[in-house]
Amino acid sequence: MAISISAPVRALMRPSAAALEPYDPGFSPVEVNLSANENTYGMPPEVRERVQAALAEVCVNRYPAPLADGVRERVARWHGVRPESVCVGNGGDELIFNLFLAFGGRGHVLVNCPPTFSVYRLYAELVETEVVDVPRDAETLLPDVDALVEAARTASIVVICSPNNPTGDVMAPGDVARVCEACPGIVLADEAYGEFAPAGASAEPLLATHPNLVVLHTLSKAFAFAGGRLGYVLADPSVVGALAAVRQPYTVDSLVQAAACTILDDRDAFAPTIAKIVSERERLSAALSALSGQGVRVWPSSSNFLCVRVPRAHEVWLALRDECSILVRDFSSTPGLEGCLRVTVGTPEENDRVASQLARLTKEVRNG
Amino acid sequence: MAISISAPVRALMRPSAAALEPYDPGFSPVEVNLSANENTYGMPPEVRERVQAALAEVCVNRYPAPLADGVRERVARWHGVRPESVCVGNGGDELIFNLFLAFGGRGHVLVNCPPTFSVYRLYAELVETEVVDVPRDAETLLPDVDALVEAARTASIVVICSPNNPTGDVMAPGDVARVCEACPGIVLADEAYGEFAPAGASAEPLLATHPNLVVLHTLSKAFAFAGGRLGYVLADPSVVGALAAVRQPYTVDSLVQAAACTILDDRDAFAPTIAKIVSERERLSAALSALSGQGVRVWPSSSNFLCVRVPRAHEVWLALRDECSILVRDFSSTPGLEGCLRVTVGTPEENDRVASQLARLTKEVRNG
Repeated sequence: MAISISAPVRALMRPSAAALEPYDPGFSPVEVNLSANENTYGMPPEVRERVQAALAEVCVNRYPAPLADGVRERVARWHGVRPESVCVGNGGDELIFNLFLAFGGRGHVLVNCPPTFSVYRLYAELVETEVVDVPRDAETLLPDVDALVEAARTASIVVICSPNNPTGDVMAPGDVARVCEACPGIVLADEAYGEFAPAGASAEPLLATHPNLVVLHTLSKAFAFAGGRLGYVLADPSVVGALAAVRQPYTVDSLVQAAACTILDDRDAFAPTIAKIVSERERLSAALSALSGQGVRVWPSSSNFLCVRVPRAHEVWLALRDECSILVRDFSSTPGLEGCLRVTVGTPEENDRVASQLARLTKEVRNG
Repeated sequence: MAISISAPVRALMRPSAAALEPYDPGFSPVEVNLSANENTYGMPPEVRERVQAALAEVCVNRYPAPLADGVRERVARWHGVRPESVCVGNGGDELIFNLFLAFGGRGHVLVNCPPTFSVYRLYAELVETEVVDVPRDAETLLPDVDALVEAARTASIVVICSPNNPTGDVMAPGDVARVCEACPGIVLADEAYGEFAPAGASAEPLLATHPNLVVLHTLSKAFAFAGGRLGYVLADPSVVGALAAVRQPYTVDSLVQAAACTILDDRDAFAPTIAKIVSERERLSAALSALSGQGVRVWPSSSNFLCVRVPRAHEVWLALRDECSILVRDFSSTPGLEGCLRVTVGTPEENDRVASQLARLTKEVRNG
């Protein structure tokens, strides 16, 4: 259903809000959905059963624990920090928004490295924060770390998405440290996809020495809980206090808290699927790289998706969706990502299907 | 655990955020919790079982439907509006915040009638909206409708909590209509407690003729789902569009959507409990009114709580908590509510217990 805002209502809105359009991702019903970087394997069945059992115990008539203490304590134990260093949120989204709400605003600058997760700019501007872009290299899609460090010197917030969505690269912790040291404000390392990256890729060890670093995680990706919306940050207790001051108190509901506690207790059960996604990523990457003669380019990825440039990308995207019932994400009209699609790594069958159809379609558009 | 914000971190924050303290309601563990206006009866067991069955069907690894279409359609059918006139949120809180985010901001004025739900002022100021108070009468605790209509003429947003939390009174729909007609902006009628009010109390029939009216509902109170966080507004489709533009897309998770669909399908099953709460409210009100000789005053309530003035209120509140294991809400230091406690209407046993202990304690403090 189309949503629109009339001119008279738009005239009543805050200018930064009036500049926006209502968002509806409009997912098409397809057989193979590789568009949203979900974990298409689903939860291990025994974990899903334990989640279900935990849900049965929830007193739904009572308000949730506002700071999700059970989740917070489990996250703290896992990451070897104190609970005071953890803030839990309704997905990464809420934590990103609240961080910008707390530390952004007029006269505050957010430094961003596009192409990256579009939500950073969107939320920053909504809460009236100036956004300064340090663009990635047009060819490698890697950030310009020296330029980023320079821009960080006058930033209120720097956002580093690592692995970056949708390009897949990791920023080395040493580079994140340089940014933290240059920045007088807050540095957000969004590691939503961190579980798919090699060991040593996380900025987390810097937390002990860099109190302005905030590391964001989510259960949406590796832990197959996109439907539940559970994100968390690791940060200095004072930054957690700032997030607690601006948050709405009950955003993480009791059902999700119960489910998340179970997932965290059982997190080792997800390791085989994570390893499988990583090996499938390399297999899919090799299959698509083999299409370089048909104009296909694949960037290296440390995440659960691949950024792929194909000829006539939008046309290929439509054909995938409408002829093959495969949905991937079309970034071909995003600046810096011309011709690019983002393909979530799925099950072996899903990956075979998208690889073979991309082989066929890129051959067709080349010959057509 | 105490949460605090260091001076250096506070200095980095947006001034409107730096003015806040981290919120933790710090619920004390007690035997009788009548502090949060929850439905202490809980969900009818057969509904809770159907909720549990619905939760088992949720594909938790996929993102939720962003606009909660299933919930939206059921709400629309129930209220006799189109789905385009419904926006679903993470409790009423998210919808209140987003409404202020969309229609507030610098140069925008929110008109508020304190004493009322403290979140209105808090969220409005956080998103840099000026708050103009039209105080309630010190004796009756009723709003000054003529003054409110005058203030509405230059308001971006007027908030009317009806029944009002924590005073319990309803604003007559004819008065809400006058406010809507005077206001060039948005009028929010927060009817979170509307199911406990008499027939004819809701502003909802005005929606068809007053496109600037927004009516807020929640499943947290009458529908015993405070733990789930499901609120919704009925509004002009263009106002829904404005809320959709500023919202984070996945705030209502898949588990809650599934549960809420079940609750809405089974909503008639809640009618006996709602009727019981209303009759218990009158019984508790009568019991407390009988203590007028001990300095107790009870205001009439159309909600699931009573506003009660008692001598040495804070002392009585502490004694209730620490000696009697009964938690109510202490408003005795809130301007306009000096000496007041808010007592949620519970089960007959809970109400007997709080009434007898208040009788004892107010006698003691009178004699002590």
